[in-house]
Amino acid sequence: MVGIIMGSTSDMPIMQAAIDILKQFEIETEIDIVSAHRTPDKLFDYGKNAHTRGIKVIIAGAGGAAHLPGMIASLSPLPVIGVPVKSRNSIDGWDSVLSILQMPGGVPVATVALDGAQNAGILAAQILGASDIAIRDKIVDYKDSLKTKVIEGAKTIKK
Amino acid sequence: MVGIIMGSTSDMPIMQAAIDILKQFEIETEIDIVSAHRTPDKLFDYGKNAHTRGIKVIIAGAGGAAHLPGMIASLSPLPVIGVPVKSRNSIDGWDSVLSILQMPGGVPVATVALDGAQNAGILAAQILGASDIAIRDKIVDYKDSLKTKVIEGAKTIKK
Amino acid sequence: MVGIIMGSTSDMPIMQAAIDILKQFEIETEIDIVSAHRTPDKLFDYGKNAHTRGIKVIIAGAGGAAHLPGMIASLSPLPVIGVPVKSRNSIDGWDSVLSILQMPGGVPVATVALDGAQNAGILAAQILGASDIAIRDKIVDYKDSLKTKVIEGAKTIKK
Amino acid sequence: MVGIIMGSTSDMPIMQAAIDILKQFEIETEIDIVSAHRTPDKLFDYGKNAHTRGIKVIIAGAGGAAHLPGMIASLSPLPVIGVPVKSRNSIDGWDSVLSILQMPGGVPVATVALDGAQNAGILAAQILGASDIAIRDKIVDYKDSLKTKVIEGAKTIKK
Amino acid sequence: MVGIIMGSTSDMPIMQAAIDILKQFEIETEIDIVSAHRTPDKLFDYGKNAHTRGIKVIIAGAGGAAHLPGMIASLSPLPVIGVPVKSRNSIDGWDSVLSILQMPGGVPVATVALDGAQNAGILAAQILGASDIAIRDKIVDYKDSLKTKVIEGAKTIKK
Amino acid sequence: MVGIIMGSTSDMPIMQAAIDILKQFEIETEIDIVSAHRTPDKLFDYGKNAHTRGIKVIIAGAGGAAHLPGMIASLSPLPVIGVPVKSRNSIDGWDSVLSILQMPGGVPVATVALDGAQNAGILAAQILGASDIAIRDKIVDYKDSLKTKVIEGAKTIKK
Amino acid sequence: MVGIIMGSTSDMPIMQAAIDILKQFEIETEIDIVSAHRTPDKLFDYGKNAHTRGIKVIIAGAGGAAHLPGMIASLSPLPVIGVPVKSRNSIDGWDSVLSILQMPGGVPVATVALDGAQNAGILAAQILGASDIAIRDKIVDYKDSLKTKVIEGAKTIKK
Amino acid sequence: MVGIIMGSTSDMPIMQAAIDILKQFEIETEIDIVSAHRTPDKLFDYGKNAHTRGIKVIIAGAGGAAHLPGMIASLSPLPVIGVPVKSRNSIDGWDSVLSILQMPGGVPVATVALDGAQNAGILAAQILGASDIAIRDKIVDYKDSLKTKVIEGAKTIKK
Repeated sequence: MVGIIMGSTSDMPIMQAAIDILKQFEIETEIDIVSAHRTPDKLFDYGKNAHTRGIKVIIAGAGGAAHLPGMIASLSPLPVIGVPVKSRNSIDGWDSVLSILQMPGGVPVATVALDGAQNAGILAAQILGASDIAIRDKIVDYKDSLKTKVIEGAKTIKK
Repeated sequence: MVGIIMGSTSDMPIMQAAIDILKQFEIETEIDIVSAHRTPDKLFDYGKNAHTRGIKVIIAGAGGAAHLPGMIASLSPLPVIGVPVKSRNSIDGWDSVLSILQMPGGVPVATVALDGAQNAGILAAQILGASDIAIRDKIVDYKDSLKTKVIEGAKTIKK
Repeated sequence: MVGIIMGSTSDMPIMQAAIDILKQFEIETEIDIVSAHRTPDKLFDYGKNAHTRGIKVIIAGAGGAAHLPGMIASLSPLPVIGVPVKSRNSIDGWDSVLSILQMPGGVPVATVALDGAQNAGILAAQILGASDIAIRDKIVDYKDSLKTKVIEGAKTIKK
Repeated sequence: MVGIIMGSTSDMPIMQAAIDILKQFEIETEIDIVSAHRTPDKLFDYGKNAHTRGIKVIIAGAGGAAHLPGMIASLSPLPVIGVPVKSRNSIDGWDSVLSILQMPGGVPVATVALDGAQNAGILAAQILGASDIAIRDKIVDYKDSLKTKVIEGAKTIKK
Repeated sequence: MVGIIMGSTSDMPIMQAAIDILKQFEIETEIDIVSAHRTPDKLFDYGKNAHTRGIKVIIAGAGGAAHLPGMIASLSPLPVIGVPVKSRNSIDGWDSVLSILQMPGGVPVATVALDGAQNAGILAAQILGASDIAIRDKIVDYKDSLKTKVIEGAKTIKK
Repeated sequence: MVGIIMGSTSDMPIMQAAIDILKQFEIETEIDIVSAHRTPDKLFDYGKNAHTRGIKVIIAGAGGAAHLPGMIASLSPLPVIGVPVKSRNSIDGWDSVLSILQMPGGVPVATVALDGAQNAGILAAQILGASDIAIRDKIVDYKDSLKTKVIEGAKTIKK
Repeated sequence: MVGIIMGSTSDMPIMQAAIDILKQFEIETEIDIVSAHRTPDKLFDYGKNAHTRGIKVIIAGAGGAAHLPGMIASLSPLPVIGVPVKSRNSIDGWDSVLSILQMPGGVPVATVALDGAQNAGILAAQILGASDIAIRDKIVDYKDSLKTKVIEGAKTIKK
Repeated sequence: MVGIIMGSTSDMPIMQAAIDILKQFEIETEIDIVSAHRTPDKLFDYGKNAHTRGIKVIIAGAGGAAHLPGMIASLSPLPVIGVPVKSRNSIDGWDSVLSILQMPGGVPVATVALDGAQNAGILAAQILGASDIAIRDKIVDYKDSLKTKVIEGAKTIKK
């Protein structure tokens, strides 16, 4: 249901958080490595066909001059969530943030925070939840669990 | 179906592009002014109840220290699209971009480009299209129209 | 007398400096965790009622897209001091600085330096000292102690 | 009661907003030009004596490498509000923002947004209001007026 | 011999300088509009085939999240020169500069200055001149003409 | 055939990647240290004469206020590839990136990513390959090897 | 006595302020256009010989990737003052500021503010004044005139 | 002859390089700690009197919102060299760089690179050398030693 792709295996430690949270929501994921710059044919194939095999939302993570999310958004009619990854030679993450966020008119990428793969997973769930009450209810529960954790943290600090 | 809110009437010239594109997709919109900092009660009411009256996606635009999209995302289980608006005293737009994009774990905002309201509208349509084939087909058509326009531009330039 | 809140228990190591300096000035503090994004109801309750239970100044610290100080400033008539915290996935601190500093007209946040919780505490004391000579005298003494320390440092270096 | 100073007469168009809002709150102001770099003796005299003639809060606006707010904070026991002014040769305002905000431990400046003189005035009122119920009530009224304006704007847009 | 492409007809006023300087060097050019985001199929076709019809160097200009130069570099074995164009909603040009410059290992783009289309043309000539003495001599002459212009400017100013 | 120079021996760990990749392409390299600021005479000699001893492309790496690539481009008719090196006291690499990239009209430097020496080597090979089919074929093979590596990475992750 | 050079006649409107203030101090100036990138031979000649014809301080202004001040500092034993000029295609002036300021160890450039040619002139006078009491006295007088102007501005505003 | 001051003993590890290089040039130095924000009276005394006891150039180093160099420049007729120090809570050094560099018209600070204390020392020597041939000759010798070191480095690398 949710396709998760990234430009390199080195993005996996960051992108794992998207997989984990979607597993927690019991939403099926399909993981792959698709490099815009090293496997352009695979990029094209993925972008053109993802929706035909039942994928409803795509999460794409990449670092540096990050073209993967935007190119997938160019090729697919599906909503694409972009995760800017702070790669090794990045200029403080600005390169991936701006390469993903500043898409031209007509081709949006739903960008989340730098290294924000967990939020990408939640956003994917919310998108599915827009027309699926069961998923939306899980999001409501998840938000409650966040609240509980803060309330408990507050108790600890007051002691 | 799509709720469009903004922090101030001065954001209207930018946000109009979201309304226009959704009208073009024949998707119903509901427009309102909700200021996180000037009408916090309205903010709470909006965020808590939008999904109960049939809204499926929220687009929120704001400038400067832009808290509207993030606070709505905090209050609502719906997917929230944030539009950073380059307001009058903005530091080149960086303030609204970072205030909307860099949300903490657990509460995503789907951020689009600076002043990218048109893309916010398209993204909202794509989100609805994830479970509505008729809307997805309109997106495919829209993408074809973008292509046609570029092809025609190419012809003009070659002359 | 001074309410000190922060978005997460992870902000405590930074925010402790505000507590310590206010203790040194013998000014009473009330500490709590209030997350704008995870506990919005608590945020509303805190912002609307802090002044009714004797709090005169609020210090609010948060990282990333830091909405806590600005939202409290929206809800409370009290002066609010914002501490930008450089959180783990921050883009070098710019996100929290701009999210707190660049508030729109009508709703100020008194922003201090990145991770500047000690200065937030001193500023809170100065605000109380504006109408309390005893506190102002403590600030004069504190400033003298800073001077003494520099003078002694100068002696060491000249040797 | 509130001292308003600025580094140059060219800052007046920006700083006027602080004077206007304080007049609206019926709080007395004293206006002066004090240049950290051109009139250092006046700076010293102002900083050391402002509190002795009844001033309770100081608002200091300056552009570029803006040292006025920080130096006044160094010399005076009063709370100092700094207004970064985007001057003619400024590097997009970053210079004045960082020169005012990033004060070292021990000497805070309550910094407001770039060109945010109106908010500096409101913050000064809030500081006085921390121990003066009449002023605090005016702030509550002012906030209500902001709300009303947004509500009216929302009505216009819905038509 | 030199292929010049750009993402939109709106880039033409900037990119014209590359065409003009190459005409001055009497080097043949082929101009086209290829949008990475709006015409991905044309992008693929262009990138894969440019070298088969005699093109030796490609100049690609684009603004915002500028993926055109990098995607062409992904698809073609030819040297690709990227021109960051400061488009209308750009964040001061940083988005196009970083999207083009910060390519990952394996896929270089020879990036020139923001709006530096003239230099892209000269660089293309230098690349051809690396194995063509006649072109290299024209570059030497061109550099002499630059020198002459400065020397004449110096004379004017000394008067 | 390819001249590789750098401003200091401390740049060697970064620049080594350019040497390695060119060795892999079996392209001859000539390595030297040329400091624009410490050995200006050597800079002049190098820039004026490199092309006379058979060098066809120059790769120049430098950090901080990096003038080496631009000065060589001023002196030589050859294409010059600039590698911004993130040196010890660099302001996050911005200094070397901008000092190399933002060359004035008439004197281009083909800039690659921060610390992107490997890409500089590949770009040099592509420049030579523009008129040498054997080299271009090696680039095609190299690109295939990149693809294979990604495909294998993808297999690993799917397990 | 003071050599003033700039990279292009287009820098003259900014650099004029250095000439004017030195004329006011009755210090002799010698003006020239020296382009690091277009007239490298003139650059070398100027840098190597300026001190032999009685010049004691050099002021060098340039924009973009501004190499003129640093290269002159490389070639001359004289103190060199660098003026970053905000040129037409500059990225907000950051390029010239960093290209001039961030010189490597061993080769300083005394950098002044963006477009700060007037201050470059004053600094040149102060450098000469370090060993010439008559010039130092003029600087004292000049500082008094600045003070007087502020004091008069203050009077106007108080009315 | 050269006064070296810094805002805090914590700046000493950086500022030591200025002391060392001036010792190498056999130029007398006077070291002190002067904090603009913690010892304003000492600042005033230092700035007003340094030139009366034989100091000819002042080097001032400071971090964060660094007001020391600019305030000394305000108070003294001597040339002031500013060293931006990257302090612990600095926003990547931008705060100290801009606070020192962007001085208003009339009051220059000769700014060197971030943490560039060695260059501050060399610049001080060059300023003294403007009217002292013996010192200028030492600078010429020093530059020769830099050259020799690079030439030797080049030999090592070629092996």
